[in-house]
Amino acid sequence: MKIIADRQTLNHWMNGCAKEGERVGFVPTMGALHAGHLSLVREARKQCRRTIVSIFVNPTQFGPGEDFGHYPRTFEADRDLLEKAGCDAIFLPEVETIYPPGGQTVVAVEPLGSQLCGAARPGHFQGVATVVMILFNLVRPQVAYFGLKDYQQYTLIRQMVRDLAMPLEVVGVPTVRERDGLALSSRNRYLTEAERLQASALFRAMNRAQDHYRKGESDPRQLEQSAREVLLESGIDRIDYVAVREAETLQERECIETPPVILIAVRVGKARLIDNMVLSLY
Amino acid sequence: MKIIADRQTLNHWMNGCAKEGERVGFVPTMGALHAGHLSLVREARKQCRRTIVSIFVNPTQFGPGEDFGHYPRTFEADRDLLEKAGCDAIFLPEVETIYPPGGQTVVAVEPLGSQLCGAARPGHFQGVATVVMILFNLVRPQVAYFGLKDYQQYTLIRQMVRDLAMPLEVVGVPTVRERDGLALSSRNRYLTEAERLQASALFRAMNRAQDHYRKGESDPRQLEQSAREVLLESGIDRIDYVAVREAETLQERECIETPPVILIAVRVGKARLIDNMVLSLY
Repeated sequence: MKIIADRQTLNHWMNGCAKEGERVGFVPTMGALHAGHLSLVREARKQCRRTIVSIFVNPTQFGPGEDFGHYPRTFEADRDLLEKAGCDAIFLPEVETIYPPGGQTVVAVEPLGSQLCGAARPGHFQGVATVVMILFNLVRPQVAYFGLKDYQQYTLIRQMVRDLAMPLEVVGVPTVRERDGLALSSRNRYLTEAERLQASALFRAMNRAQDHYRKGESDPRQLEQSAREVLLESGIDRIDYVAVREAETLQERECIETPPVILIAVRVGKARLIDNMVLSLY
Repeated sequence: MKIIADRQTLNHWMNGCAKEGERVGFVPTMGALHAGHLSLVREARKQCRRTIVSIFVNPTQFGPGEDFGHYPRTFEADRDLLEKAGCDAIFLPEVETIYPPGGQTVVAVEPLGSQLCGAARPGHFQGVATVVMILFNLVRPQVAYFGLKDYQQYTLIRQMVRDLAMPLEVVGVPTVRERDGLALSSRNRYLTEAERLQASALFRAMNRAQDHYRKGESDPRQLEQSAREVLLESGIDRIDYVAVREAETLQERECIETPPVILIAVRVGKARLIDNMVLSLY
């Protein structure tokens, strides 16, 4: 497995793949890898001849007072996991490699990027869209893999790729969960044991909405309310949002016609946790 | 010469070039072609095996009350000129081909895009950056050619390409001028005969600044003043700006160290005219 830090080496590696006509799958990450990331790598390996993972904790997607400084950095463990997973290369750039001095350009997806997590984290999705664009242009993969756990991010990247006619395919990979339903997240390690137990309420809350949807409830507000009750019953009261939205565009609807997605963001202890579920009738 | 209207045909044509390993040069235009555009095509043909020109009057770079509706559309003449110039393909998309419904993504280069022409035309350069990004992603050329006549646009595109690590080279091609120095522009046809004569003052104004620079003047404000006087003497009093700036970044300087660029934007009759000149000491 090759570890690549600079643009020139990356370019050389990618040109080698292109010359051989090898389809390249790309998994952008911020490191602190867990089984969710590894499922992205597995999916990339299934569909592509070569798999490259980037590890870059992107400063521009963290707001003031957020956890950029404390975000877990676990490179040795990440490298071992990726090696075992059969990854071909890691792109591990410094901040200056991604953002040379004097940069002025940003990519914005609006209004999608200012809703939900974007409302709670101003500038976050502009940072995400911009860094993903840069990584796509540096790596130039045929396919890029994103976890559906970050559903708004996945939707936004797909929107950006479509709007700007970027020459690659975006694949969303299902969320990996603990036995009690908690979605794997690098930020789960911020939780105490008691908070960890509490956090399982997110999955139960989404399932409650799912039940009501199957029983015929089609008012998004009612579905949100049923999920919100489960959170509050579990003592989770710092709720950023519980939202039932159209699953493709995340638009608000008065009444549900196609299976919607429920999205939740809450704060538990020091962690901000997000999760989502596309509701289904069967 | 192939005339291409849709993405699929473009993709097919570009894949053919890629397969043959042919270097593709791209000249984005809004049509209404003149000798300035043809010099871009000539430059592309010199450096590349294949040359493709796009003709697309981009609605998003025109503000309310600007000349989008009246912008000259002269496709038959454009096609004949490009055929004679040895162009290989024209990309002639409809608005919906560039902007499918539901688009939300924009590219912004700030502060560069809100200065000078960007101050007079809010949103203009966001429209330019976004459409150029889309065209680059659709065409995927190795090199793109821009006229130095639109100096701020050229600077902004270079900045965007650098900041977002886009995998292509941007080449600026010198301005083509009439015998009296007036820069060729599709908007010159808005001028009456009297206004056309008046418009030659832009070139004289820049040359006056050039003279003063050669004589040792290094205060940007003094150089701007000397050019502004020539414009006023010729009866041009609707001056958007006369600006002497650092030539690479268009930043303002208190005192000139490296050869700067002088940029002018004025209104003459119904036309908004822009021009520029990189000053030199010899």
